[in-house]
Amino acid sequence: MNTTITGEILIGQRAIDNGQRTLKAVNPATGETLAPDFAQAGPAEVEQACAAAWAAFDTYRETRLEDRARFLEAIGDQIMQLGQALVDRAVAETALPAARIEGERARTVGQLRLFAQVVRAGEFLDVRVDTAMPDRQPLPRPDLRLRNIALGPVAVFGASNFPLAFSVAGGDTASALAAGCPVIVKGHPAHPGTGELVGRAIQAAARECGMPEGVFSLLLGGIETGTSLVQDARIKGVGFTGSRTGGLALVDIASKRREPIPVFAEMSSINPVFLFPAALAARAEELGKAFIGSLTMGAGQFCTNPGIVVALDSPDLDRFLKAADATLSSHVPSAMLTPGIHGAYQKGVQALETAQGVQLCARGGTGEGPNRGAAAVFSTAVSNFLSQEALQHEVFGASSLVVRCQRPEDMREIAERIEGQLTVTLHMEEADYELARGLVPILERKAGRILANGWPTGVEVAHAMVHGGPFPATSDSRFTSVGTLAIRRFLRPVSYQSLPSQLLPETLRSENLGRVSRLEDGKRLLP
Amino acid sequence: MNTTITGEILIGQRAIDNGQRTLKAVNPATGETLAPDFAQAGPAEVEQACAAAWAAFDTYRETRLEDRARFLEAIGDQIMQLGQALVDRAVAETALPAARIEGERARTVGQLRLFAQVVRAGEFLDVRVDTAMPDRQPLPRPDLRLRNIALGPVAVFGASNFPLAFSVAGGDTASALAAGCPVIVKGHPAHPGTGELVGRAIQAAARECGMPEGVFSLLLGGIETGTSLVQDARIKGVGFTGSRTGGLALVDIASKRREPIPVFAEMSSINPVFLFPAALAARAEELGKAFIGSLTMGAGQFCTNPGIVVALDSPDLDRFLKAADATLSSHVPSAMLTPGIHGAYQKGVQALETAQGVQLCARGGTGEGPNRGAAAVFSTAVSNFLSQEALQHEVFGASSLVVRCQRPEDMREIAERIEGQLTVTLHMEEADYELARGLVPILERKAGRILANGWPTGVEVAHAMVHGGPFPATSDSRFTSVGTLAIRRFLRPVSYQSLPSQLLPETLRSENLGRVSRLEDGKRLLP
Repeated sequence: MNTTITGEILIGQRAIDNGQRTLKAVNPATGETLAPDFAQAGPAEVEQACAAAWAAFDTYRETRLEDRARFLEAIGDQIMQLGQALVDRAVAETALPAARIEGERARTVGQLRLFAQVVRAGEFLDVRVDTAMPDRQPLPRPDLRLRNIALGPVAVFGASNFPLAFSVAGGDTASALAAGCPVIVKGHPAHPGTGELVGRAIQAAARECGMPEGVFSLLLGGIETGTSLVQDARIKGVGFTGSRTGGLALVDIASKRREPIPVFAEMSSINPVFLFPAALAARAEELGKAFIGSLTMGAGQFCTNPGIVVALDSPDLDRFLKAADATLSSHVPSAMLTPGIHGAYQKGVQALETAQGVQLCARGGTGEGPNRGAAAVFSTAVSNFLSQEALQHEVFGASSLVVRCQRPEDMREIAERIEGQLTVTLHMEEADYELARGLVPILERKAGRILANGWPTGVEVAHAMVHGGPFPATSDSRFTSVGTLAIRRFLRPVSYQSLPSQLLPETLRSENLGRVSRLEDGKRLLP
Repeated sequence: MNTTITGEILIGQRAIDNGQRTLKAVNPATGETLAPDFAQAGPAEVEQACAAAWAAFDTYRETRLEDRARFLEAIGDQIMQLGQALVDRAVAETALPAARIEGERARTVGQLRLFAQVVRAGEFLDVRVDTAMPDRQPLPRPDLRLRNIALGPVAVFGASNFPLAFSVAGGDTASALAAGCPVIVKGHPAHPGTGELVGRAIQAAARECGMPEGVFSLLLGGIETGTSLVQDARIKGVGFTGSRTGGLALVDIASKRREPIPVFAEMSSINPVFLFPAALAARAEELGKAFIGSLTMGAGQFCTNPGIVVALDSPDLDRFLKAADATLSSHVPSAMLTPGIHGAYQKGVQALETAQGVQLCARGGTGEGPNRGAAAVFSTAVSNFLSQEALQHEVFGASSLVVRCQRPEDMREIAERIEGQLTVTLHMEEADYELARGLVPILERKAGRILANGWPTGVEVAHAMVHGGPFPATSDSRFTSVGTLAIRRFLRPVSYQSLPSQLLPETLRSENLGRVSRLEDGKRLLP
């Protein structure tokens, strides 16, 4: 396995050096620049990648399910074959620990394999048949058959905080490829070498599996590159994980196209954690310690980081905060992903420090070296929280705000007033269920995932996962970006009426109908 | 059954007269005004309807499936009990023939009953369970359960051309109510009395079934009423059938909200019909006659009206046009739905008459009385069609443009160049399959429904129907507004992680899991 990083742009099976080597990878833990310099894609490369994706689309979307599943598995295999070189590079580019990168690699490869199973099962095709009724009165019913087809080439914007699982071969790419969509990744400039290694793994898998060349391309670049990619008429959908500003900008660009296209932007969430009284009474110290563990994991750089904690003001809450303080006092932060992220974190924390009615409760160490941000826990009274909208803004990093409620109704009021969230967490004992029961219907309207007695960080890649939620958590609450349901984002239904068998897609021909799950005259039939 | 039309605004169980009786119903066939005058909803009524819908939401979305199904059926029963009064009023307000209204009533009631079946089956909940794996290494897997919940109160904009099936209790309302969403209909001012009768039928059904009061409201009004409805924070989705201008305006309003919401706008389609050579050779006359039948049905006021016909220039095509001309020459048009629609049709036809390179091939009679538009068939050369984008614009009414191709590749070129469509039709004999096979992959990218040897008018309400398609046919190609899949527009998934049984929604509790179809650890299990 060749693991040389060349800094070239990957378009289909080619590696291109356009001479614009203006991007440098930086080790955020040390500030040192990593070789080589990377080429940024300009309009010519965007055009080539889109042309290649478009040329591949009609072929790729009709690949046999088994072939497509093997392609996804081959990508996973190729990523594993990158071995230590991938781990080392990712650690150097992100300052995340090797164990975390290894875990993330396992998740990424597992995700590809899970989507391979989804493809093989074929249920995502949503095959439906309404049989002809030639004698029906007053009008005959025609033969109707339906399947989902791929939306078209998809642009994926890799996230900075998951250099593998939400990046070049991450969930957006895996679900789009599974759906039958060619993918053009706009790689995140914070980990260009990691991105190239993974991109070359996808190239190798595509070659090995005989996939049409344009099924995958990887472009590095700035805002102009991303903009022209989303504006290209051949792109039919966009996956994005990142900031609210970035996500909304893409939504705006996509909506102004001649043909508007869907953008699935996973953006902003403060992931409220509700600590109910009996739970606090039973295990305040344990909760306080675990809270800091979740808050500081990966330098707090998770979309599901617990950004606010809601509890009744009480001696038990003080015990919780004391335990949090004790845990945090010995915390040494690792470097954040980029100077930009670190700067934004410092600003966010400063804003909380000077916000009216907000007190600092606990602060971690500052560590040594560039891009370290001290973790911080603040607290405020419920009235203050509800009167300052800015206190709901996400501070990306290990900062959290504890809201002290006076009455159980305050918790309800907060639930009603928070914006859309990826997650909401409830810490409860049985004695708390009555109180929690009143909150669940509200929280369902606010979040994609409701979890009990755990922490929101850590998103299982599974069938029943929703990593999504009402705006501004995402731009489209009807979909998820993690888990097998994520494939739905990149599909659309087509109905075939009275088409002769020879012209029907193979899956819909009568002799093949038994192969995948289908709805026949309203009845679910299994293969 | 009281079938008095009072002209009042229906909010929940109330009928309100706000004194703003500024809207009059008009018989388009005669121009005469019909009693009574109708009250238009202002900001106060929009506020009341939204408050009522919001108050009903949490209760209504958790109604038992059986109760919700019965409510839908009760609406159908109440509509039938309106009897002849409904038919007479709809005929008077739309100039559509009584037989058509009766057929549309059957379709509307059948649609409600079909959605009742969908609700009972519960598959729309998309129940998923990933069982806990407490011993998994390196981390345990939590118990994850997923179901779809209703999006929230939905605003439905009734269409003018289907006073029953796409109006107050039409497909948008039926699918939103089935999903668990309260509905506020902005009734179409072209048939306010028909709307009120149906609205009162829904009120009666809600009363009979003990539904929460705000589950349904009906507001009449202008652009301001519609705008403030879509801008209201309590509205979480919009269904619309109508013009491209109207649909895009709603999309724009919805996207500028603090919390943007999805708009399902079914807008604009010219529904290309491809006549392949062997089909033309075998049955040019029959096709010509049937084409005029489809074109002039309901004065051409269908979203699926065949607005362009594509064929190779040949003596067979001339035979087709001759038969069309002969059929059309004896055609007497009925009145169009409104003076506005009639005026736009006349303008559209005039634009075609004076467009460069476009010839008039056939024209129907003008009829007597107001709002009649003569049906018209034009033709043009493929080169001319491809060079004038305006020739692709929809002319709502019985006007169609025949595009004369020189070579089979021209048909392919047209397929590639047309905008998104609701339908594409292929007329073929076996000898044409080879040629058609090259077109199907292109047409799949362009249309929601591909049909063979039929006509696009007539949309079956079924499981395998797609009444949707790429922009500008609709604002979101991933959904349909007709057929059981339409329910998906108004649902979003929520994941419950490790929630104790007492707090889980009933459907997801272990003892109830067997009641509806579910995906358990990736395996489909039937009830």
